[in-house]
Parts: sequence; structure tokens; C-alpha cells
Amino acid sequence: MREKPIGIFDSGVGGLTVAHAIKQILPGESLIYFGDTAHLPYGDKSEESIRYYSEKITEFLIGHNSKAVLIACNSASASAYDHLKDKFGGKIILLDVIDPVVEFLSGRNFGRIGVIGTKRTISSGTYEHKIMKKSSKTTVVSLATPLLVPMIEEGFIFDDISNAIIRTYLSNPLLSEIEALILGCTHYPIIKNQISKYFNFSVEVVDSARIVSLALKEVLERNNLLNPSAAGQDIFYVSDYTDYFERIARMFFERDINLQKADIWT
Amino acid sequence: MREKPIGIFDSGVGGLTVAHAIKQILPGESLIYFGDTAHLPYGDKSEESIRYYSEKITEFLIGHNSKAVLIACNSASASAYDHLKDKFGGKIILLDVIDPVVEFLSGRNFGRIGVIGTKRTISSGTYEHKIMKKSSKTTVVSLATPLLVPMIEEGFIFDDISNAIIRTYLSNPLLSEIEALILGCTHYPIIKNQISKYFNFSVEVVDSARIVSLALKEVLERNNLLNPSAAGQDIFYVSDYTDYFERIARMFFERDINLQKADIWT
Repeated sequence: MREKPIGIFDSGVGGLTVAHAIKQILPGESLIYFGDTAHLPYGDKSEESIRYYSEKITEFLIGHNSKAVLIACNSASASAYDHLKDKFGGKIILLDVIDPVVEFLSGRNFGRIGVIGTKRTISSGTYEHKIMKKSSKTTVVSLATPLLVPMIEEGFIFDDISNAIIRTYLSNPLLSEIEALILGCTHYPIIKNQISKYFNFSVEVVDSARIVSLALKEVLERNNLLNPSAAGQDIFYVSDYTDYFERIARMFFERDINLQKADIWT
Repeated sequence: MREKPIGIFDSGVGGLTVAHAIKQILPGESLIYFGDTAHLPYGDKSEESIRYYSEKITEFLIGHNSKAVLIACNSASASAYDHLKDKFGGKIILLDVIDPVVEFLSGRNFGRIGVIGTKRTISSGTYEHKIMKKSSKTTVVSLATPLLVPMIEEGFIFDDISNAIIRTYLSNPLLSEIEALILGCTHYPIIKNQISKYFNFSVEVVDSARIVSLALKEVLERNNLLNPSAAGQDIFYVSDYTDYFERIARMFFERDINLQKADIWT
């Protein structure tokens, strides 16, 4: 059981920032990653569709022997985590990328926290709802920043265009006087430094990848499921294959990966 | 038969610019529109997947009584038109958004033409191949400009950010000395004036919506299929429904539309 891989899924490449953090914190573990590239991006799909996709993918990961399943996508965490807990909760360890961040922040006593993410994540109100339930003195303000994902994927980072787009979003009065900003999308760690710089490093920019990896480590330890042997092979599946996708995956995982197509929709 | 609607499909809202042009040129016709919002955008999906989606959607439109089917999406036209002709060619009038533009340009004797579009449209080489086959003296250069679709959908138009993004793409040396630029994506007519202005109105910016509508009119006339009575109701289907989508549809169709969800994938 302990040698089994950790299942991770996302709509595409974004979850690879989380996969990368897991490999750093838990180098002994093997990963099985699923990117639902046939339906990417999830950020503008309906809640109903995201639940359906997430359920089928979780079945796929369980069917491929995962000892735990991590939803490495904020849109899916916001829309489908409760549904997946109802379906699979007793059978497997299930984590999302939102709850560990909420837990982490609840000990920090921030007065005002901002969240940025996709339209799906923000309109769900999940961060606001969960943080304010834990910390009644914290105000949470949230803003959809949907151009950031395609901007990053097209390589517009650390340049004038990305600075202008970031400035346009982050200068929204809603975000004034925040003490921390949650990067509520797994693509955003790529531009974390640029966002910190926008705030002149006076706002704590919270990147969930490391926080989630530590939560995963803790739950595996607690269940005596940490892999005691050396890491096996990581496996990466996508539901639609393009060369382009394989190329940008490098930016997110910081090394080359081999993608295999898994026909789970047709 | 002549009273039957014209079927149109796209991955999402883009094809509504074509639908709008058809309503202006053929006000007597009814439309049945299908936006494959469960899989949007097509621009970064594989050719194989786009063929599969296009075939199923065409079956849906034929099943809903269309007298003709128009592929109002460049990515699908580039990847799936030949496949659809093989499958449905004898049974129904089938048009794409690329061939009418190629036909239009072949009479114009341009020396150097540029094409901009999604990654899928550009990597297919369809415009280059078809134009150069018709007009051996014409050089065609093409450039993928994938950030333009999300930029337009997020409302970044006629502002500093969109000007900067457009300038970054169009200043590519590949496009120097072009006499005409094909807008190889049905979203781009929204920023046609901004693109013309970038070139100081010295480059002919070719927007396929009107050209395709005239080609459709011509083929309906030739087959004695123009609707002689007043227009019936237009119907708009999507494969995944969100409020947001209904809102941005207004920008593309220039009036409110009612979207209905059609479950063709699950």
C-alpha cells in the first residue's frame, strides 16, 4: 500500500506546480498525474460539468492504484471537493488545494485577505466562506483575474504586457489594504515574484503548492502511508494530446515529462 | 425545405460574429447555432479531438433539420472540414469559413498576405496551403496570436493593454510588408478597427464574416433554398451553460440571445 502512487489531477498543466512541490517535500513518492486537457480550462466551465469530470477522473486515479487523490486545481476544489468527499470519502484519502490554505491562514490572524482566481473559483465564494467561518475577524475580498492563465501559458511573464495586466487587476480598489493575497489558481505561482513586486513586497503572497504538499505529508504520515523505498516512476496522463502542451508542461514542472493520452471521455 | 434553418457551429461565442453577419445579409433565414462550450476553446485542442467534436455537432444540426451547415470556427474549419465533407458531403450543403476567403483573395492578386489565428489554425497551415495553391504568386505568412481570444473575452479592447498585446504580436518581422491580413479567428472582428489602426489603415484587414455570409447566400440561391417567408425564431444551443457565457454572447451577436443547454456529450 505504501508503495502506491499519489494521484493528482487538474484541468491541464497548472497542477504541475503542486506536483513539483510534492516531489520536493516528498521525494520518495511516485505520482500519477491526470490533466483533463480535453476540457481545459475549467475556470469558465459550469459547476455541474466540473463535478462530472472530477468524479470520472477520481475513479480513473483510484483504478490506477492511487493511495491518495489530490485535487490540484482550484476551480475543481471549489466546485467538486464536497461532491467527491460524498462519493469517495471513506474509501481513499482525498485532499483539495483550498482547505490546507484555509487551515494555514486561520493561525495567522490577518485582518483583510485578498483572493485572486478564475471566474469559477471566485464565483463559488469558497475561500471567503471557509476562511470567514474559521476566522470571524478576517475580511476576505476576492477578484476574478481570468486573463492571467492564458497570459502565463503564452509566455507573457516578467515583461511590460504582464506588468500592465497584473497592475490593471491588482489596482482594483477591492484589494486595497489587504495584508495577504491568496494565489487561488495553480498557474499563479509562476508569477508570484511579479505579484509580490507589484505590492512592493508589503503583502504576503500565499502560494498553496507548498502548504498543500505539507498537508499531504502530514496525512500520509498519520496514516502510515509514506513510501519507505526509493521513488518509482511518475506517470502523466492527459485526455487530449498536443505537442504544445508537452512543451509548456516544462515551465510548470521544471523538468521534461512524458505525457500519455488516456481516453476516458470517448 | 426552404423554411428550414441554417445550422452553424463554433467552440463558443466566436461564431456569433458570423451568425450576426448572416442575419444582416440574409434576414429571412432562421439560424440554429451550436457553441461547444464544454470543449472551448478549440484553438489548443488536438486535430483528432476537433474532428470528433465537429462530426457529432454536425449530426446534431442535421438531426435538428438544418438545410445547410456552416463551420463558423477557423480551428474546426482548418482541422475538420475535409473530414466532414467525406462524411456528410453528399447529404447536405456544408460550408467552412476558410474556403470563401481563399476564393475572395484569389481575385485580388496580393503579393504578400498575413494570417493570424489560434495555434490550431496556424499550425494546420490550411490558409497558406489553400491560398498558395490558387495564387502561385502570393506569399502567405502566418502567426499564432493565442492571447487575443481571452483578451477579447475578458473585455480588454480599445485600451492600453490590448494595444500593447496587439503591438507585440503584429510587430513580428514576419508580418512586415504584408498588403492584407486575414483575421483567421471569428473573435477577431471585434478588434478589427484596432488592428487596422495599428497598420495606419495601410493594410487590408480581411474579416471573413461578411465574405462567408455572401458565399452562403450564393450557394442557397443556386440550390433554390433561400427562405421565401419571414424569418422564424433563431435557436442557440451550448454544450455547457454558464451565465457569463450568455453575457459575453451579447458582444458578439450585438443583441441578447437565449441559450439552451444540449447534452450531446454525456
